[in-house]
Amino acid sequence: MIDTVRWKSDNAGKLMPGKLRIIDQTLLPEKLVYVETDNLEQIYDSIKRLVVRGAPAIGCAAALGLGAVCQHSNAKSKNEFIVDMNKAADYLAKSRPTAVNLFWALNRCIEKIKSTELNDVFMLKDQLIQEGINILHEDIKMCRAIGGHGIELIKAGYGILTHCNAGALATGDYGTALSTIYLAKEKNIDVTVYSDETRPLLQGSRLTAWELQRAGVNVITICDNMAAQVMSEGKINIVIVGADRISANGDAANKIGTLGLAILAKYHKIPFYVAAPHSTIDIELKTGKEIPIEQRNADEIRCGFGKLTAPADVNVYNPAFDVTPNELIDGIITEQGILKAPYKKSIKRFLDSIN
Amino acid sequence: MIDTVRWKSDNAGKLMPGKLRIIDQTLLPEKLVYVETDNLEQIYDSIKRLVVRGAPAIGCAAALGLGAVCQHSNAKSKNEFIVDMNKAADYLAKSRPTAVNLFWALNRCIEKIKSTELNDVFMLKDQLIQEGINILHEDIKMCRAIGGHGIELIKAGYGILTHCNAGALATGDYGTALSTIYLAKEKNIDVTVYSDETRPLLQGSRLTAWELQRAGVNVITICDNMAAQVMSEGKINIVIVGADRISANGDAANKIGTLGLAILAKYHKIPFYVAAPHSTIDIELKTGKEIPIEQRNADEIRCGFGKLTAPADVNVYNPAFDVTPNELIDGIITEQGILKAPYKKSIKRFLDSIN
Repeated sequence: MIDTVRWKSDNAGKLMPGKLRIIDQTLLPEKLVYVETDNLEQIYDSIKRLVVRGAPAIGCAAALGLGAVCQHSNAKSKNEFIVDMNKAADYLAKSRPTAVNLFWALNRCIEKIKSTELNDVFMLKDQLIQEGINILHEDIKMCRAIGGHGIELIKAGYGILTHCNAGALATGDYGTALSTIYLAKEKNIDVTVYSDETRPLLQGSRLTAWELQRAGVNVITICDNMAAQVMSEGKINIVIVGADRISANGDAANKIGTLGLAILAKYHKIPFYVAAPHSTIDIELKTGKEIPIEQRNADEIRCGFGKLTAPADVNVYNPAFDVTPNELIDGIITEQGILKAPYKKSIKRFLDSIN
Repeated sequence: MIDTVRWKSDNAGKLMPGKLRIIDQTLLPEKLVYVETDNLEQIYDSIKRLVVRGAPAIGCAAALGLGAVCQHSNAKSKNEFIVDMNKAADYLAKSRPTAVNLFWALNRCIEKIKSTELNDVFMLKDQLIQEGINILHEDIKMCRAIGGHGIELIKAGYGILTHCNAGALATGDYGTALSTIYLAKEKNIDVTVYSDETRPLLQGSRLTAWELQRAGVNVITICDNMAAQVMSEGKINIVIVGADRISANGDAANKIGTLGLAILAKYHKIPFYVAAPHSTIDIELKTGKEIPIEQRNADEIRCGFGKLTAPADVNVYNPAFDVTPNELIDGIITEQGILKAPYKKSIKRFLDSIN
């Protein structure tokens, strides 16, 4: 599988010294380039500029990134080390505001070193890195589990519409939304995937099309505004997308354009599913209205591809996400099964079973 | 106003010799370049490549283009001239399949020279060019008339969403959908226009944003997939789009993405209007299902910005238009007033009053 986020150590059998290694997704599909780093600024910048993106992958990269950075700490005591790591984690947490996995993963790493009985700083560093690796390994297991449940929704010959990239490049392994598709491929269930190109940063055409094509899946790229037409022609049997944050009532923030797809699916009576692990759920938020929506730079729209595609000074509105209300969601595919409405209950039950 | 399509003669007071002059819209917003031509291949190519586009502008360009080309005819008799012009018109009619104004304008020019009592070939040429100019002048009057009716739907402070370009660059003058906005500007009624960028060829961000900004209108560019979010935030009071062909029952073919907008507008209870003159109505077609939909080149999506934005060989589906069913349309703004459902009746009455 594509190794989007990994821990890289050349010291056989040992974690240190090591680095965070990620695929630079801004260069795809033209070039497959890996970035190795233990530099805090570069890790922050990599998340901010979408070198690494996708809620679960951001979580893994932040955790392993914190592990990479911790090697530079000159702390002499556990307390000093925790102060250093809190500072680094707070900084990384500011790289992007919407995906909750970022905060979840950083918190988990910090909690780990706070709660351990270890006191030796070297051992604490080792444990911090190990926790990042644990998060990555759980993510890999989680992806396969989501696909295992999602596959129940798929029949041979299905047309599946997806948006943005919730695949291998958004996670440690099979992806969330795309995991179902990879599992279908494993089981020789033929499907056709319609992949929205997903303006402005084209994660659909650059990333989803690239990784599915690599895997031998039949993928067709469309512009975002073609989804209604493709649905009206009867080509789509199910829509599956990922999520960046899900509130306690099942409202789901995901890449801008998802809300529109959910409304179009409802109109065409096509089932609409969100695939996400428990780390994407933010139980602190009652509804999607409380989810902060990142506004991004206007030039992503005005000259995103090195060429002026709008007047250079025209006003632009560029929200990176939208929130799909729970009543438009037919189910949330998680690593423990498919949650159904009423989501307030099913989400609570799901999280209780995990903790 | 922007002079998208004109007849250009340097022979003071006379039509001949003259040329079709159009703005090369493929170079906007970076450069404003005019093309002057009397070459049949170049006129065909200009329509095909969207150097000139927009249903009414295509009609004007085809008519004036036929006039420009006719100057080269060596016909010795009226019959020979009609044979020559039929051949040229049949060729131009193949440049694009969806916009009915193309066929309507060419037919009208051919009928004009067939039905005239003139026999002198020079006089016939003059008359053919004059008919193209008549079509252009009627188009200019039509634009203003559409705006005059559309303005009834607008209040100060309104947010207006539009798609593609149904403005000055799509017509001889004020446009169809945008005419209402230009008239609001004339009357100092402040509105904010949200302009979908309109992938793959970005007529919204390249053309609509450019011409509205030039006119001092407050315009905000968004990606197509942001329309649902902008609507859900309460920023849109009305959607107004143009049309490329309308069937007898009021189904309207327009730039791909229009159907999606109509569905989103319905969901958000936002009125959805189509603005189009009588020449856009194809009474021969009972419903929109009979409207042929142009499929365009895959590379418009895969490398539309001069850079690879998808795997070079990935499958693409690229319909240039979609059809919005009449039940999603709150009204059709024509040069004689706003048609309402049932459209079969109101369209028939409208066309009867014109002919």
